[in-house]
Amino acid sequence: MPTYDLLITGCDVLTRQDGSYVVVNDRDIAIAANRIRAIAPAGQIDRAQAREAIDAAGMLAIPGLINCHTHAPMVLFRGLAEDVPIESWFNDYIWPLESNEEPEDIYWGALLAIAEMIQSGVTTFADHYFFCDEIAAAVEESGVRANIGWAVFGHEGIEKLDATCEFVRRWQGGAGGRITTWLAPHSPYLCDGDFLRATAERAKALGVGIHIHCSETQGQVALSLKQHGVTPAVMLQQAGVFEAPTLLAHGIALTHDDIAMLKGYDVAVAQCPKTYLKLAMGTAPVRAMRQAGIVVGIGTDGVVSSNTLDVLEQMRLLALDQKQAARDSTVMPLQEVMAIAFEGGARALRLPEIGELAEGKLADIVLMRQDGAHLFPRYNAIANLVYSARAGDVDTVICDGKLLMRYGRLLTIDLPRVRAEITRRLRRLNQRVAEKRLATYPVTQD
Amino acid sequence: MPTYDLLITGCDVLTRQDGSYVVVNDRDIAIAANRIRAIAPAGQIDRAQAREAIDAAGMLAIPGLINCHTHAPMVLFRGLAEDVPIESWFNDYIWPLESNEEPEDIYWGALLAIAEMIQSGVTTFADHYFFCDEIAAAVEESGVRANIGWAVFGHEGIEKLDATCEFVRRWQGGAGGRITTWLAPHSPYLCDGDFLRATAERAKALGVGIHIHCSETQGQVALSLKQHGVTPAVMLQQAGVFEAPTLLAHGIALTHDDIAMLKGYDVAVAQCPKTYLKLAMGTAPVRAMRQAGIVVGIGTDGVVSSNTLDVLEQMRLLALDQKQAARDSTVMPLQEVMAIAFEGGARALRLPEIGELAEGKLADIVLMRQDGAHLFPRYNAIANLVYSARAGDVDTVICDGKLLMRYGRLLTIDLPRVRAEITRRLRRLNQRVAEKRLATYPVTQD
Repeated sequence: MPTYDLLITGCDVLTRQDGSYVVVNDRDIAIAANRIRAIAPAGQIDRAQAREAIDAAGMLAIPGLINCHTHAPMVLFRGLAEDVPIESWFNDYIWPLESNEEPEDIYWGALLAIAEMIQSGVTTFADHYFFCDEIAAAVEESGVRANIGWAVFGHEGIEKLDATCEFVRRWQGGAGGRITTWLAPHSPYLCDGDFLRATAERAKALGVGIHIHCSETQGQVALSLKQHGVTPAVMLQQAGVFEAPTLLAHGIALTHDDIAMLKGYDVAVAQCPKTYLKLAMGTAPVRAMRQAGIVVGIGTDGVVSSNTLDVLEQMRLLALDQKQAARDSTVMPLQEVMAIAFEGGARALRLPEIGELAEGKLADIVLMRQDGAHLFPRYNAIANLVYSARAGDVDTVICDGKLLMRYGRLLTIDLPRVRAEITRRLRRLNQRVAEKRLATYPVTQD
Repeated sequence: MPTYDLLITGCDVLTRQDGSYVVVNDRDIAIAANRIRAIAPAGQIDRAQAREAIDAAGMLAIPGLINCHTHAPMVLFRGLAEDVPIESWFNDYIWPLESNEEPEDIYWGALLAIAEMIQSGVTTFADHYFFCDEIAAAVEESGVRANIGWAVFGHEGIEKLDATCEFVRRWQGGAGGRITTWLAPHSPYLCDGDFLRATAERAKALGVGIHIHCSETQGQVALSLKQHGVTPAVMLQQAGVFEAPTLLAHGIALTHDDIAMLKGYDVAVAQCPKTYLKLAMGTAPVRAMRQAGIVVGIGTDGVVSSNTLDVLEQMRLLALDQKQAARDSTVMPLQEVMAIAFEGGARALRLPEIGELAEGKLADIVLMRQDGAHLFPRYNAIANLVYSARAGDVDTVICDGKLLMRYGRLLTIDLPRVRAEITRRLRRLNQRVAEKRLATYPVTQD
């Protein structure tokens, strides 16, 4: 019987040597079940030991990309809120649109989003959305890995919070371990202290983490100081949220004191710079967070702000925005971008077995073509990955040892059918009735 | 005999109606020789009237993208100067590297660059480089359109300037009209007033324009004020440069008074925001320029700063950087991005017959696939183009009525051979000997 289920032959591999990310050439990668069992110079592993082989000569193998913060089914509204201010974006677009959603919409929306992520080399995503059973079903079918949190607003009450705990119980460890579940209160500005405290207690009792928006704009921080006398981060701390593993989305307006305080907790921050640029929200203090030892990962946010679920693009924008904001082209060097995207992503989702191509790790692997003119010469393969490669270069995607895309063709999702199902729903979904909105964004006067 | 040489059938078309960019669905585009002769609802034009037909159902036709400022052969050095400050970028990397170049390197480098541009949907580029006969030969063979200026430093003297005028005479209107030639003094900081005056006189005598770097950083402006008592833009004005049609590269640090002065002249500005972000150079006053009626186009700059020759990416970054810098998500709306990329690009290069899909215009057409999950739904096709599409979606490229790429396959360039020729040269090209540098960037203390 063959030792390996899959042998990837002759590729370049993004890996780590002495703490640095490097690209080594001409390697074979052997996979058994859902794990990487060997990475060896090409030819060393006997081809006959593998049930199936993929010739990956000329390709670059990277760890499956990790999307630490998104609202995947919002792909249903792609392009519906362009060039608008953030308050209008929430109150006139997003929340009225989302009031139209029904559970089956979410299932098809999640499949479309997962198709886009697979095509972009993303194998794991952290979702913060509604009707999460449908999202979990789409994850289970499509073969990707996800951390799913059912978003809840304080005004929906404890009963709704408890319903999201039931989702956690139903799906924790689901899809053969590919699904993890967390609690997902929306934000300190839409969940009061008591609601946050109740969330923290439940998260601790369930043994799960909390995924929440925090300090997205300076205006939110000013409003929190006015209304509560503390920053949103301190409000979370006081409610006990940080006693559970926490993933903060954005943190653009975290203060110096917030960052010093966060050092004492198991808190990570997801960065989605395309949203910050497009909605003109400012630039997060990523270097200060990292200097304080806070884990930072990369997310895409939902596509109504960022238009794509493309983590490669967000990596590039993170570096570009950080350099420009600091007026210093030496900040956020290539090694740091790699550390945030891969190690940071894995740590932010508390999934230590992903984010690295090494023996024993889970087999989440993306093969990227390198034959485009934009990737030559290859003096610096990591610079090419961060600043030249594009999602269109993704050729083959493996998650948990299974092939999800090969030669650019999706293997687990029938995209034409997904498009057809969504097309039937578009007219109902794109209505906007202000009174029907899910919630109201407070005026913050940024 | 058929009326048309090529009929593109059933595509969506990015066009203009009442001054606005819109996407119309299900159109046929008929081409005779090098011009668009008809755009009509699908099926109206008799297929038998065309010598050849392309089924473009589901594709989006856009005008060939226009790259208003690059140094194409610098692809030879892609990835060799990462995460470095601008002064080191010039003095320790670019100019020492460029001292290694021989004419035949430039020919192969230009072909690699053109291959990348075709793969990215770019049909026209404005080049500012050395050994321009080799660049022109690559343009002639590959079928793209180019405006080529032979870069010259003041210290090279009037004799060298006159040699670049000889290049203008040799190639103006070359490649069946696809090549235009301009003069290309490097910059006000590396060309003194007398040299610029001599350049302006020659440009006027030749009836050509001038392509020059100007006000790339605040430091350059401060240095100019200290050394010359005027800004770099005023220095160019006083030397008579603006009496010829002028294309300024960058203009990040143009002052309010500079912009008011430029209004009186036939001056356009090329914007290359990826370079500005990556080298942390600040953000150009694009809205002020446009409000003053100054034409703005998009460029990619050389890949040693921007890593790609991808105009789609630069369009996106222009909008994102302008929004973030203004802290206003409503600035640089989609229509303005379109106007800059297409109308602005054509006007910046003084090529009024490109940049638009309309009857009578030159047939520079790019067909983009829209079947990726990242481009669905299509509520807003222009938002999808600016914020979701990527160069990897380019399927077919036509320039001057001729097919240069089809189904993603290059038809006029043998890319494996280009790669092999460049590979033989890499070891010689990537040496850096500081004393051998072409020029010295002045310390400007930005």
